[in-house]
Amino acid sequence: MYVLIVYDVGVERIDGVRQFLRQYLTWIQNSAFEGELSEGQLERVRARLRELIREDEDSVIIFTASSKKWIRREVIGTEKAEVSTIL
Amino acid sequence: MYVLIVYDVGVERIDGVRQFLRQYLTWIQNSAFEGELSEGQLERVRARLRELIREDEDSVIIFTASSKKWIRREVIGTEKAEVSTIL
Repeated sequence: MYVLIVYDVGVERIDGVRQFLRQYLTWIQNSAFEGELSEGQLERVRARLRELIREDEDSVIIFTASSKKWIRREVIGTEKAEVSTIL
Repeated sequence: MYVLIVYDVGVERIDGVRQFLRQYLTWIQNSAFEGELSEGQLERVRARLRELIREDEDSVIIFTASSKKWIRREVIGTEKAEVSTIL
């Protein structure tokens, strides 16, 4: 299924969250990742995020759609794709 | 239609973008707004965002779905709703 995750976490936890999400999803913006995950993968992502964040302070919102076809996506400005793997 | 906007803009343009989006959508996280807009409203949002941001530096991604029913949404941690209007 299509998954979009946006997060707002304490600065000391950002690197951990980002490094973890990068294993499953594509970084699309400062605080957003997207990609295709199975239900099992999403369950692992959910479980690990609960360990990585402070649930009383941080916020992670997971949007899912059964298929990407239900969602239109447009970019205004630059497409900030992850360049670290290209460079 | 259901609209989710995530943005990554220069710090000097954040307030302008946020104040503008607040007129149309609900602030749900540091860099994300969501809500229901008509096609006409979305067109106005798009046009005004193009004026507010620097297209060569900033990034705004607009996700739309014809109906909210296509999207599942879950929060891990805190739901950071906008409290300024409640206080």
